[in-house]
Amino acid sequence: MTSIDLTAAERAAESAAPAVPADLLDPGFASDNTAGISPAVLGAITDANTGSALPYGGDGVTARLEHVIREEFGSQAQIFPVFTGTGANVVSLQAMLPRWGAAICTRQAHVNTDEGAAPERVGAIKLLARPRPDGRLTPEDVDAELGAQGFVHAAQPLAVTLTQSTEVGTVYSPAQIAAVAERAHAAGLGVHMDGSRISNAAAALGVSLREVTTDVGVDVLSLGGTKNGALAAEAVVVLNPDRVTGLDYIRKFSMQLASKQRFVSAQLLELFGTDLWRRNAEHANAQARRLGERLAQIDGIELSSPAQVNAVFPKMPRHVVAALQSRYLCHVWDEAADGDPIIRLMCSFATSDAQIDELVDHARRASTARLAHGG
Amino acid sequence: MTSIDLTAAERAAESAAPAVPADLLDPGFASDNTAGISPAVLGAITDANTGSALPYGGDGVTARLEHVIREEFGSQAQIFPVFTGTGANVVSLQAMLPRWGAAICTRQAHVNTDEGAAPERVGAIKLLARPRPDGRLTPEDVDAELGAQGFVHAAQPLAVTLTQSTEVGTVYSPAQIAAVAERAHAAGLGVHMDGSRISNAAAALGVSLREVTTDVGVDVLSLGGTKNGALAAEAVVVLNPDRVTGLDYIRKFSMQLASKQRFVSAQLLELFGTDLWRRNAEHANAQARRLGERLAQIDGIELSSPAQVNAVFPKMPRHVVAALQSRYLCHVWDEAADGDPIIRLMCSFATSDAQIDELVDHARRASTARLAHGG
Amino acid sequence: MTSIDLTAAERAAESAAPAVPADLLDPGFASDNTAGISPAVLGAITDANTGSALPYGGDGVTARLEHVIREEFGSQAQIFPVFTGTGANVVSLQAMLPRWGAAICTRQAHVNTDEGAAPERVGAIKLLARPRPDGRLTPEDVDAELGAQGFVHAAQPLAVTLTQSTEVGTVYSPAQIAAVAERAHAAGLGVHMDGSRISNAAAALGVSLREVTTDVGVDVLSLGGTKNGALAAEAVVVLNPDRVTGLDYIRKFSMQLASKQRFVSAQLLELFGTDLWRRNAEHANAQARRLGERLAQIDGIELSSPAQVNAVFPKMPRHVVAALQSRYLCHVWDEAADGDPIIRLMCSFATSDAQIDELVDHARRASTARLAHGG
Amino acid sequence: MTSIDLTAAERAAESAAPAVPADLLDPGFASDNTAGISPAVLGAITDANTGSALPYGGDGVTARLEHVIREEFGSQAQIFPVFTGTGANVVSLQAMLPRWGAAICTRQAHVNTDEGAAPERVGAIKLLARPRPDGRLTPEDVDAELGAQGFVHAAQPLAVTLTQSTEVGTVYSPAQIAAVAERAHAAGLGVHMDGSRISNAAAALGVSLREVTTDVGVDVLSLGGTKNGALAAEAVVVLNPDRVTGLDYIRKFSMQLASKQRFVSAQLLELFGTDLWRRNAEHANAQARRLGERLAQIDGIELSSPAQVNAVFPKMPRHVVAALQSRYLCHVWDEAADGDPIIRLMCSFATSDAQIDELVDHARRASTARLAHGG
Repeated sequence: MTSIDLTAAERAAESAAPAVPADLLDPGFASDNTAGISPAVLGAITDANTGSALPYGGDGVTARLEHVIREEFGSQAQIFPVFTGTGANVVSLQAMLPRWGAAICTRQAHVNTDEGAAPERVGAIKLLARPRPDGRLTPEDVDAELGAQGFVHAAQPLAVTLTQSTEVGTVYSPAQIAAVAERAHAAGLGVHMDGSRISNAAAALGVSLREVTTDVGVDVLSLGGTKNGALAAEAVVVLNPDRVTGLDYIRKFSMQLASKQRFVSAQLLELFGTDLWRRNAEHANAQARRLGERLAQIDGIELSSPAQVNAVFPKMPRHVVAALQSRYLCHVWDEAADGDPIIRLMCSFATSDAQIDELVDHARRASTARLAHGG
Repeated sequence: MTSIDLTAAERAAESAAPAVPADLLDPGFASDNTAGISPAVLGAITDANTGSALPYGGDGVTARLEHVIREEFGSQAQIFPVFTGTGANVVSLQAMLPRWGAAICTRQAHVNTDEGAAPERVGAIKLLARPRPDGRLTPEDVDAELGAQGFVHAAQPLAVTLTQSTEVGTVYSPAQIAAVAERAHAAGLGVHMDGSRISNAAAALGVSLREVTTDVGVDVLSLGGTKNGALAAEAVVVLNPDRVTGLDYIRKFSMQLASKQRFVSAQLLELFGTDLWRRNAEHANAQARRLGERLAQIDGIELSSPAQVNAVFPKMPRHVVAALQSRYLCHVWDEAADGDPIIRLMCSFATSDAQIDELVDHARRASTARLAHGG
Repeated sequence: MTSIDLTAAERAAESAAPAVPADLLDPGFASDNTAGISPAVLGAITDANTGSALPYGGDGVTARLEHVIREEFGSQAQIFPVFTGTGANVVSLQAMLPRWGAAICTRQAHVNTDEGAAPERVGAIKLLARPRPDGRLTPEDVDAELGAQGFVHAAQPLAVTLTQSTEVGTVYSPAQIAAVAERAHAAGLGVHMDGSRISNAAAALGVSLREVTTDVGVDVLSLGGTKNGALAAEAVVVLNPDRVTGLDYIRKFSMQLASKQRFVSAQLLELFGTDLWRRNAEHANAQARRLGERLAQIDGIELSSPAQVNAVFPKMPRHVVAALQSRYLCHVWDEAADGDPIIRLMCSFATSDAQIDELVDHARRASTARLAHGG
Repeated sequence: MTSIDLTAAERAAESAAPAVPADLLDPGFASDNTAGISPAVLGAITDANTGSALPYGGDGVTARLEHVIREEFGSQAQIFPVFTGTGANVVSLQAMLPRWGAAICTRQAHVNTDEGAAPERVGAIKLLARPRPDGRLTPEDVDAELGAQGFVHAAQPLAVTLTQSTEVGTVYSPAQIAAVAERAHAAGLGVHMDGSRISNAAAALGVSLREVTTDVGVDVLSLGGTKNGALAAEAVVVLNPDRVTGLDYIRKFSMQLASKQRFVSAQLLELFGTDLWRRNAEHANAQARRLGERLAQIDGIELSSPAQVNAVFPKMPRHVVAALQSRYLCHVWDEAADGDPIIRLMCSFATSDAQIDELVDHARRASTARLAHGG
């Protein structure tokens, strides 16, 4: 099973891709989850491996993490470490919604397209998906679903879930989040943020994590660690405790409670108890920007949109795509009807200059070769 | 709770409607479920009320119903009576789908908008909703979702569900159904039909029930009785037994198995063991057509689309709508940005000529009054 | 499918029963759901069949029913008609429990053994089943489960569900209910009563419905109509609104909301707006007592327990059982290791003296014949 | 939250325990999940941290693990790494059961008492729990539930789940497993084993993992790694592929699919690709035996049962228990009505001789002190 986090559009395009077995390709730019563990994070795991400790979060590392999270997100903040981003999202939404609640999201939200219907299956939660090509939900999207409130035949919209940075590589400004949150709160809805890449967003915006969450009305955050250098560590961070109930129980029956939790907490503590989260994210963002700029210098290649975080979406001639795909695992993102395809390339905390040079050279050679042959 | 089967569009419009309490209004044209029980159906219930009988479908009435259904739908057909249309749909889809299956439908499908998320909550089934303003799914809709097949992160599209007649009053031709079914079957998907108004559709098309179901590839049918004259009687009719498993068990745990089932079966037997289903539906359709033609003769009123079944969608000046809404429970269906609103009026097996005359007179007076005043 | 409401014990015994096809047997004493509709109830349905009415409970019959229920159960009482007893139970428990809640019941509770796991499947509710041979839960049963409170690894016991009269034909006294309710409330648990046969219990105790529910601490009642003369009519009756949330929505997504609800309400109104519920139940109870007394006069037959409500549990020689089972659908209830089997016979509102005479004669002849032959 | 894996009995006893805050106690003997990571396992994680790799199991470490598992369990064996034991159990049972299936287990099965009702909530699976004080299910338990087969009102028993070693520290012999499996298979049920401590069981029995699984009829195994030295690594191991469907999809929507799966696989590969699983388990078992023998030499302390695996159940005077609980987190397992309490102490791969010496000294001093004072 070699699937990674593609959208439906990518997957459709994929089926026409050249048939090089995935495991012979370089997965380095396919997603930010193809990277390994950030050395300091692995060090923190190693350091936590001394003696016995209370399981399920009764340990001292978790206690320190709880302190750090209050420092970072506000004195009311509570953290519940989990294993996966899907786990964080589905635990969050269950804690925010009664049995009859539904959540408003964008159509391409990870929660809607890439979680195997876990919200519906584990949480019995209907998603009210809104078309937003740029990946950012608006106050109008909230309004559009409010007609169902009080209507007994409809799932009740009682939460909004935003992804920051979004699935299409864009970033909400703090003001944009505040606007959605204001509308949501006014109508009685809670605000959840899928922050599997929130570090990349905060780094790109040059703000603190709190400035794009607590301060702008986010009630519950899925805090991402894995894509930014952890082994497997995400968390539900409750910013407004009035908006959730039963989180401890929900995490447990949702199978997201680690017995040796100190080792999950240690990863998060290393990332968020230092500025590692920001350094790693800034590196990933910078490498994406650099990769984009370098590619855009090649004849025939242009950027379909500026890299806001750690993804690049270059548009390039079909033969260059083919050349890249013969060596790299990478996905056609958009198949323009009358033009060149757009691909997605992602950078991570671990992306090196050498890797970028290599890919750019490969693309340039492919471009030049064809030009030389009059292609 | 006075809510009836409105779409989101109706509900939004509703909120701006004049504030006459719903229970003081005439509900006769609000929906086909405001009618009572067809006299022959009530007679059949009365006739079945003799002596004791095996519960849960072991009775003789159910045995006769099973025979009739095989006659009507083919020798493989099996019937499982249930209480509601939502029940029929959710039992059907559960029997057709594994735990990881999803169903393709239109955005305005009853199953997607008006079942309180029962598919998601009772069946853990994700719906893949496609925008289709005319309410009819196409083979292209099937194709568009197939990219997810085999992708472990996505709910697997393994069934299609069509509504006949549709939520917007349109009808699939047998060829249109066959086209969707062919594409679905080719890709391994089963075909479900939400037939809460299938009688109206078959009557409008002048075909047998079998010609719009078994013969064109429908695998499982939600057969509607209630809207066409029953007290509360719907059924799952399995047309292709290879496409379902565990139906008996699923009906039970979905709380749709009647202990005194003979009385549910008696209703369906009266409707489908005679031509009552067709007569009732033809009456409802004819009255809708007549209502539409009469209204269209009034100055300022036009039909936004021809009445295909038992719903009429007249476009009329705002003051005429207001006049109607002061007396009738009726819903603004579409609020055109730059013109008159469109309302929905529904007829049933029980709609009388006198009721139509009265409503038309009311509308005409409202229209004339304003014209006389130079409105 | 001819299964009726047997316990596991019955079913095991059943498999050894003589192989007369069920539909050739007289089902009159097999269960109280083999009876038809009480004539006055059918009359009420017929009377309600005039003109159009608001669907989903907006009708006048439902309004009258709501009034009657407040009269009967107290001014806070709210009624939500549904289709089946399983529906009433599962809607009730969902409204009483958060996602992490569990309900304490007896092992042989209908909700635990005969609802196809609907509580678990539709409501995601774990049942904590306690062994109680006499079918009556005690305060000690509540205590025994409280150890799990606050323990994150365990489903949280947050409700108790009692069946009145019980699955084994016993009756809770008001004091017994009060004792359980007191313990439950003290520990923060709500109290639900499965009252599919509450009319039989109240009739046997000679008390009002309120005296065995509201007055003794029951928070939510599944009010049974079907077994006592309705076609298909049960209801969730909320006695303490503080113990439930979202009932309207839960009933809908649990597929228990009737569109033509006036006809469901009419059945309940006829039963509970008059003394029909009591007369029907008293008849059923009296016939059971009479049947028991008559059987006990036959040589070799004795009653294993006095008939408290409408079930009789006679112990009789195996050949008499065989004779009865060649003509009547009836179930071996208990297969004593070293003695005669105990069977269950049930009476209903419709059981006639003639039916009893006939069964008793049949049993007597079987008993005598064997005695005459020196059996 | 300091709860660990206690049974209901323990928890009840716990409430009467002296009030020393849990985080001031030594958790070393409270459970085998209070230990850290086995050094070689941590080394394997470190070794896997090179370069980028395909996510979600497309990596080379997982490929090697798959090979090792086939070597260990048979050529049909397939492995699906997950995060927790609850995850492994609930994914397994969902893959083995249709929507209407139920699983037979013991009352004290972890799946029944300590998984927060995840089987019911995530899988909609009813558990049919059988009382077995020694924790071992028998063929008779299977028989006792078969009466429900085909009975539409009952959840259908379609799987058996055994825990090896059991929750009460006992071990099934291969013959005992085979006997249950034979009966289960004969009746059409699949056999699942909760093997969160299967290494301890196999080590105690002196057999291979295959000899207590594949060879004796186990169809699906929850393979435990965490309690035996992993950070967080368990797996579903399918031994008989004919008994499961949709495992890939089920693991995903059950939120048990790791993106950086190479690091989960690396832990399992280190344990099961070498004899580390056996060495760690043998150490834990030996230390438990040693601890038991040493404690039994103290006046007034006796073993309530011989240590079969890595748990010891010493019975000791109440004041000795109090002395231990003032220093160690340990749980009263059984509170005999008329005698001394029994406590549970657990050893792990990491339990040192010094730790044992210390605990034994502490107990001896407590015992002697009282004796000296004539206690």
